[in-house]
Amino acid sequence: MNAERKPHILVCNDDGIEGEGLHVLAASMKKIGTVTVVAPSEPRSGMGHAMTLGVPLRVKEYTRNNRFFGYTVSGTPVDCIKVALSHILPEKPDILVSGINYGSNTATNTLYSGTVGAALEGVIQHIPSIAFSLTTYENADFIYAGKFARKLVRKVLRHGLPEDTVLSVNIPNIPEAQIRGVRITAQGRSRWAENTIERDDMYGSPYYWLSGKLQLMDDDLLYDEYAVRQNYITVTPVSIDMTNHNALKNIRRWKLNK
Amino acid sequence: MNAERKPHILVCNDDGIEGEGLHVLAASMKKIGTVTVVAPSEPRSGMGHAMTLGVPLRVKEYTRNNRFFGYTVSGTPVDCIKVALSHILPEKPDILVSGINYGSNTATNTLYSGTVGAALEGVIQHIPSIAFSLTTYENADFIYAGKFARKLVRKVLRHGLPEDTVLSVNIPNIPEAQIRGVRITAQGRSRWAENTIERDDMYGSPYYWLSGKLQLMDDDLLYDEYAVRQNYITVTPVSIDMTNHNALKNIRRWKLNK
Repeated sequence: MNAERKPHILVCNDDGIEGEGLHVLAASMKKIGTVTVVAPSEPRSGMGHAMTLGVPLRVKEYTRNNRFFGYTVSGTPVDCIKVALSHILPEKPDILVSGINYGSNTATNTLYSGTVGAALEGVIQHIPSIAFSLTTYENADFIYAGKFARKLVRKVLRHGLPEDTVLSVNIPNIPEAQIRGVRITAQGRSRWAENTIERDDMYGSPYYWLSGKLQLMDDDLLYDEYAVRQNYITVTPVSIDMTNHNALKNIRRWKLNK
Repeated sequence: MNAERKPHILVCNDDGIEGEGLHVLAASMKKIGTVTVVAPSEPRSGMGHAMTLGVPLRVKEYTRNNRFFGYTVSGTPVDCIKVALSHILPEKPDILVSGINYGSNTATNTLYSGTVGAALEGVIQHIPSIAFSLTTYENADFIYAGKFARKLVRKVLRHGLPEDTVLSVNIPNIPEAQIRGVRITAQGRSRWAENTIERDDMYGSPYYWLSGKLQLMDDDLLYDEYAVRQNYITVTPVSIDMTNHNALKNIRRWKLNK
């Protein structure tokens, strides 16, 4: 990249165009580059890598305080990236940042996360991509997370990223002085513990709400969920290659051709 | 598992309760076990690992030819598994099978696939899980795929599966005699090539349809997409751990704590 030229930064999220973390992230990125925001028109948490098939998508300009802020897409975070790259941006951005998400995206939450999904779609389309999440749903203070995002984006613009890999970053929602440092971690083994609620409607028919809580199964600072609970920022390299390469040899012994 | 007891098999898909491949898979599984079908009420292709948050889910009994066939859930494939395990099944099934999907789920399609998503959710909930896909959208002949699924389920009930890993199986849509064998493969590097279509509605406003085609980037029988195009059945072990473990050391050199 030309050192004279400001980087072009695509900003997306899964909490939707009104998400506070998106606005903090976009403002932070504007200090180091030219920013285009493309975000879901509505909150789309839990969408993982879903894309919309068989339903047309709408793109709208979004203004805030009478100023153009970005574009909305009537679909999932992955849809946003697809439409941004095919129809909104004149050329590929230098980097994609997704977030800042309300709530951590560690351990198995990585699979459900639309924030991470958008970043994975960026990598599929050969753009260095980073997902940012703040580990809280309430009393969120995104300011330090936005500052750290800027530091990390600068590093990635300099070093590049390993092939087919996004960084998923989780930042504790605590004052900067209490953050114990940054750890490069693996996706934790903690699981989303189900808490599906059954209720009856006014006709006596049941309906179900999905809900749950991340259950700690990690016990080592190597893992994102454990480390972030110990007040570290975690940076997890997440690959689009989901193969369990260690299992190939084992399964070949089953002799499925017999 | 007690050899006297028939295995309990949970069957799901992403093409919805009316999907032909689901009915072939359920019929095939009934020959070796007790079957419960829980599938989306509508086609939910491309949903990946999406789950429904903030919208209640409905469960209905589904009858076909005046006979009870299974349950529908008004959500994603992942939702089906969550509701099945929390509210429909009295105890954990011995195995989960998902499919048989219309169209291959190889290479990066693994990330978008609701068929694979359902199986991954099974593994998150500690159930051995397999996803089956037939590599066509038209003139599908699911019969041999159903037969192969039975063979593989028997193997998995005997051997178990590697930890945190599903099998994603792709079966060419050709006569049995032309199938060249079974290969244990890695997720291919082929990419979904975008082909987003822009149209104008009656008011002159644009809308977008997502569409595309898997672009072959693989050239080795080690990879699922290439092998399946060479008329092999492919069996790919897919992990819920998306960490790029090889990248950890490299990124630690960036000294993010400085």
